[in-house]
Order: sequence, then C-alpha cells, then structure tokens
Amino acid sequence: MTNYEAHLDQAIARLHEEGRYRTFIDIERKRGQFPHATWRRTDGTERPITVWCGNDYLGMGQHPAVLEAMHEALDATGAGSGGTRNISGTTVYHKRLEAELADLHGKEAALVFTSAYIANDATLSTLPKLFPGLIIYSDSLNHASMIEGIRRNGGAKRIFRHNDLAHLRALLEADDPAAPKLIAFESVYSMDGDFGPIREICDLADEFGALTYLDEVHAVGMYGPRGGGVAERDRLMHRVDIINGTLGKAFGVMGGYIAASDRMCDAIRSYAPGFIFTTSLPPVVAAGAAASVRHLKTDQERRDQHQTQAKILKTRLKMLGLPIIDHGSHIVPLIVGNPLHTKAISDRLLEEHGIYVQPINFPTVPRGTERLRFTPSPVHGPREMDALVRGLDALWSACALNRAELAG
Amino acid sequence: MTNYEAHLDQAIARLHEEGRYRTFIDIERKRGQFPHATWRRTDGTERPITVWCGNDYLGMGQHPAVLEAMHEALDATGAGSGGTRNISGTTVYHKRLEAELADLHGKEAALVFTSAYIANDATLSTLPKLFPGLIIYSDSLNHASMIEGIRRNGGAKRIFRHNDLAHLRALLEADDPAAPKLIAFESVYSMDGDFGPIREICDLADEFGALTYLDEVHAVGMYGPRGGGVAERDRLMHRVDIINGTLGKAFGVMGGYIAASDRMCDAIRSYAPGFIFTTSLPPVVAAGAAASVRHLKTDQERRDQHQTQAKILKTRLKMLGLPIIDHGSHIVPLIVGNPLHTKAISDRLLEEHGIYVQPINFPTVPRGTERLRFTPSPVHGPREMDALVRGLDALWSACALNRAELAG
Repeated sequence: MTNYEAHLDQAIARLHEEGRYRTFIDIERKRGQFPHATWRRTDGTERPITVWCGNDYLGMGQHPAVLEAMHEALDATGAGSGGTRNISGTTVYHKRLEAELADLHGKEAALVFTSAYIANDATLSTLPKLFPGLIIYSDSLNHASMIEGIRRNGGAKRIFRHNDLAHLRALLEADDPAAPKLIAFESVYSMDGDFGPIREICDLADEFGALTYLDEVHAVGMYGPRGGGVAERDRLMHRVDIINGTLGKAFGVMGGYIAASDRMCDAIRSYAPGFIFTTSLPPVVAAGAAASVRHLKTDQERRDQHQTQAKILKTRLKMLGLPIIDHGSHIVPLIVGNPLHTKAISDRLLEEHGIYVQPINFPTVPRGTERLRFTPSPVHGPREMDALVRGLDALWSACALNRAELAG
Repeated sequence: MTNYEAHLDQAIARLHEEGRYRTFIDIERKRGQFPHATWRRTDGTERPITVWCGNDYLGMGQHPAVLEAMHEALDATGAGSGGTRNISGTTVYHKRLEAELADLHGKEAALVFTSAYIANDATLSTLPKLFPGLIIYSDSLNHASMIEGIRRNGGAKRIFRHNDLAHLRALLEADDPAAPKLIAFESVYSMDGDFGPIREICDLADEFGALTYLDEVHAVGMYGPRGGGVAERDRLMHRVDIINGTLGKAFGVMGGYIAASDRMCDAIRSYAPGFIFTTSLPPVVAAGAAASVRHLKTDQERRDQHQTQAKILKTRLKMLGLPIIDHGSHIVPLIVGNPLHTKAISDRLLEEHGIYVQPINFPTVPRGTERLRFTPSPVHGPREMDALVRGLDALWSACALNRAELAG
C-alpha cells in the first residue's frame, strides 16, 4: 500500500532543495498608518516593519469611506450573506456593487465573484459550454487563474508568445474561420509590469471574428480617468467583450468580477458552477468594495500620486544601477535571478531594515528571473522611500550583486 | 464568423424553456431581527419577509461576538488583506483562525481558503500531483465543487452510487492494490439531508489503504459537542485524513478550509494554485469567522435549539401530509417534483405570505425532484413557524398537489 506521508515529505523536500519553499510572514497592518505594520515572528516577538510588496496599491484598505461603509453594513445586516447568490445570498449590497462596476467599465452588466481568481477560472471554463468548439488564444504570461480556467474542461487552446501579435495572427489564420474564438490577455502583467497591446489585439479580434477577454486586475482603480483600467485610459473599453477585475488590490477589499453585456453576464451567471455553487460575498465586503470603486471614480489625485511614487522609486533605483525592469507601469521588479539570493536579500531587508518585500520565485515567475517586486503607493512617504533605497544599496554591495550600466 | 449573441440567447432560452432560469431575489436581512428581512422588488418597492432558505443555520451572522470581532478588526487593520497569503496577505487573524480550526477538528493544522468551494476544488485537484497515479473514489451525490476538483486535472476517478458501500468496495477491489487511493464524500448531503456512512467508509479506507476526504460544510458548527461536525459527534475525526468545512454557513461569515496533518496542509499550501494565487480573506472576515468558531465550541444550547426547530417543523409538515424527506438532519426538503410548480409555489409564498424559500432545480438536484428546502434555525420562532405551516397548507390545497399518507 502507498506510503502517503513519504510522498508528502518528498513533495515538500523538493521545494526546500530548489530554494522555493514559501514561508509566510505574519504581519498586521495598522489602520491609519499604512504602509506601517507589525511583524510577528514565529517565537512571538514583534517588530515594526514597512510593507513594500502589498497589492493595496492605493491604500484604499484604510480609507474612511470604505471603512465607514463596512461598519454600517455590519450594523445593518450582520456578518455573512447566508447563502449562494441564488439561495438568499443576493442583497442590495451585491446589486449596488455590480451597478458600480458596470458603470465603471461602460458595460451593460457586471457579475461579482468571490475572487478575481474564481472569476477568471469560472468564466473561462464556462465559455466553451456557451460557444461549442470555442478556441481560446491565451497569452503565454497569463495569470494562473486564467490558465486554470482555460485548461479546466479540455477545450481547444492556443498559447501565443507574450505580447507577440505576429504569432497570435499566425495562430488565428491557421484555424477554421467559422470556429468561435476568444483572445484572453492582460492589460498589466504583474510580474514584469509591462502592458498588453489592447488596441492591436482588438483589431485582430475584429479581423478574425473573435471575442476579447481582458484581465485588468493590476490596473482597475489605477488607470483611466475613473479608474476603469488601461482600456479606459486608452478609450478601448467598448472594444473589449469581457473585462475581468479585482476588488482586492487597488480597491483594497476582496472579491472579483467580470463586466460585459447583459446576455453574457446572464449566461455566465446561469452556467458557471464557480458562480452558482458558492456562498456570495458578505454584504460588508460588497459594501466596502462599492464605496471604494465609487470613491476612486473621482480621486484622480490618488492615481497621480501613485504613478509619481513609482517614477521616483524607479529613478532612484536606476541611479544606483540596480537592475529593475521599467515598462512605465506602477510595478517595480528588481531582478536577482537566483532563488537563494532573492530569499537572502528579502530576509536581511526584513531583519536588519524592517522592510518587508517577499521573494518571488518559480512558479510565479520563470526560474532564473527570481525577483523582489516593490509596490510603491501614495501612502509610502519620502522617509519610507529613503529607508528602502539605502537598505537596498547597502545589501546589494554586501552581497556583491551585479549592477546595471547607468542609463544615460 | 460566429454569431456570439445568438449562442448566448439560445443558452438562456434553454433555461426558460425548462423552467429553470434563475431569478435572484434581492433581500436584506436585518441584524438583530433574523430571520426577518426586506425584499426589494425590481420596481424598487419593498416588502418585509421571513427568510426560510438561508444557510446561516444558527443565526451566527448576527451574533454580537462575531460582529464585535469584525468591527475591531476593521478599526485595527482596515478592510482587505492587501495580498496573497505568501505576499503580505498572512496576518495574525488568519493564523488565529487556522489555529481555531485545527483545534476544532483535532488536527495538526488547518488551511483557510477564500471559500469551501475553492477549498474542495483546489485540494482535490492538487492531490493527484502529490500522489502520482492517485485514484479518487467519489460519492455520486458529492457537491459540484468536489466534482470540479476531481475532474480538473483529468486524474483517475471512480464514481460510487450514493452511500453504496458494496459498490465502493467493488470499485476498490477492482483496482491495483498498490495504487494510491482517496475516498471523497460528505457527512450531510445538503439536498436530501441524509448522512454519509463515515465509519464504514473509514473501515474500507483502512482495508484498502486509501485516504479519506470528508466534506462537512453542512455539519460544522451544528454537530458534535464542540461543533466539529458529524465526524466529531461520532468520534471519528481522527480517522478522517482531510476534513473540509465552510465558514459561510453555520459560522455565519465567509470562507472555507481543510483540516489535516501538518505535512498535508504544507503540501497543499505549496502546490495548489487556487490557494497560492489569490488574495487572502480580509482580516475582518477571518476575525469574525474565528470568533464564531470559538463561540460555537461551547454553545451546545444553540445546537440543541437548531435540532429541536427542525424536528418541530418536520413533525408539523408530516402531520399535514406534505411530502418531506426526513433523514434526521436539520435540513427539511419538500419535494414538488416539477420545476414550474416549484417556482409557482415559491413565488406565491413570497408574494402572498412574505415567506422566502428559493425553488431548487436541476442541476442542483436531479430533474423530477425539484423542491423547496427549508432551513429552520434557532432564530425562527413559533410565530414564523405557524405562518410557514399555514401558508404551505393553503398553497398545497390551492395547487391541488399530492399529500403523502399520514405516517402512523
């Protein structure tokens, strides 16, 4: 008979050997003092730290409008929703949130899921049921949740090289013109911080009669005059059939959604097990998310501060010759290129400098591109930035890591 | 080229034709007044209603201990977690919740997911990666989330007839004794309210060297001296390898989990995309759930009231000859057997009596067994129960539906 424990031990040992065993750092952010937080070590001792790797990109998780809406919902209606969307779990909070999101993206409708992960997985795995014979064209760097959704039911898929329009075109040309098609891609790829060519992909979709599915989780709230994402910024929202977004990053709460036509949302709502058979978001979460979406529709200043902070950090790191990737987005990846070094720098930043940035390893990024990924935000002030830049400079020298040529 | 809109229209039309198009009812429960709620019609008018189909089985969604913990967490740490569990999204709230759950089930560890749906899906789809060649034996009435998880990666599976131990044995006997095996089943099947034979399945697992995976989502909080579920009640928790539970039903909040050995949780945590690549639960949700789990460990009175309420309702409906299913659990299914009749009775209960119970149709239950499913709870008083019984009696006569023989 099988020795199950030995199998588990082997699976865990593999991760240790490859230096990619994940240790979760236990932190508690302090409302009103973001990005400051408390780190609780495993021995119970505590240390104040600054969080530099969170996805609450705009600090909305501590915004009074969000917290007030959540306190109010708790007082009015209690903790959970008490059911699936169909069985007693649809509330005015869910309806209001979906209306905010449909409006945000200029779509007829929106559908809220418990996470953007499940929104991707459930939607992409359901589309082949609605369009028999559907072929999905998927960018090679799409997020795990999209990959899982596309793979789930064994439908036809084609992987095109990251942002490679010629490759995408070649794949589209090779398939039956009559077959239903969908192109799935992202607006901001979170690990390199580069942008997807939305306009060009929409052009190809028009040419080949394909639907478009755009993941904007690292863009909603942050780009576009109302926070509708890169597609809003570039005035392309109307050309995208299905937009996927999250309520857990720039909006600072939790949950995910798609925005699309009435028909599309109605069909997904009716056929996706991952939407149907799960308890809906607590009203308190829906209320907070709706308040955040609403607020960010008019808070352009916060979006500007966010971009400014990212530019300053990138400039300062470049001046020190640190090998960052800069595609002009808000994400600041610093390539170390080795899982053990990445982990060592991360550990020393935390222990010696009180700076928390998690190492990012395979399978989140390809082997050999292990990195630290900084997420500057409007709540990171000059003092926090100074401390980070000094800490990195010191450690880079101490570890004798390569510096890039100084850019002109 | 494909006419996508026509495909969507057809998919939706199919549901209308079969009488199983779902219309979500927009309700808002009133904290402190459960099960009373407000129904908002699509025209904006409102009507007070009583919710009879929620899964907040014990009314914990309005418990002061839960709400206080949530208000406190909001004040202390803000709205969302700001990251995945690995990247800044593990907090003391998550650790405390996992410790409560491990303790609840007498296991070394627990792992919290954003929902019990994703806990099932992610865990069951990851186990074949950890145990190459794994064969999963799955009860034919397992929940959609288990089915999705088992199917996801195309691993070997065997479906045994619901609760049929002889069939399960025959399937186990037919396979290679050396192959790793897992038996996946539930303790309470929510649509009929019947129990799984936990002891007998554990015996078979021992005999054939299989792991056991038990979904207790409709039992945790409600059964066992501390709310550990049916396996705790029957003193079998130590014989189950992986217990799955929800924080969104009896615990009244949101989220799901598995409880298992340290090794097992460590491996799932490290290999399951559905755990790794998603924003963690908001601290406010984790805090509320932990408070609820903690409270229910000592509130046996609430569990007793719950069972008493279910017994009273079942007795009263039986006395009227209404065809309920009674397996001795807290769930009260009333079989109508036709989707249109079920919908009509549900609509009239809501409109004429202010009683909200959602029709349950295919694919949630097999065609021909469409039903209303009542979930009596400690917050449903004698007045609410009288109104329900009178309303059902009147509608059953008005619609000339069959009554069962009066049981002796």
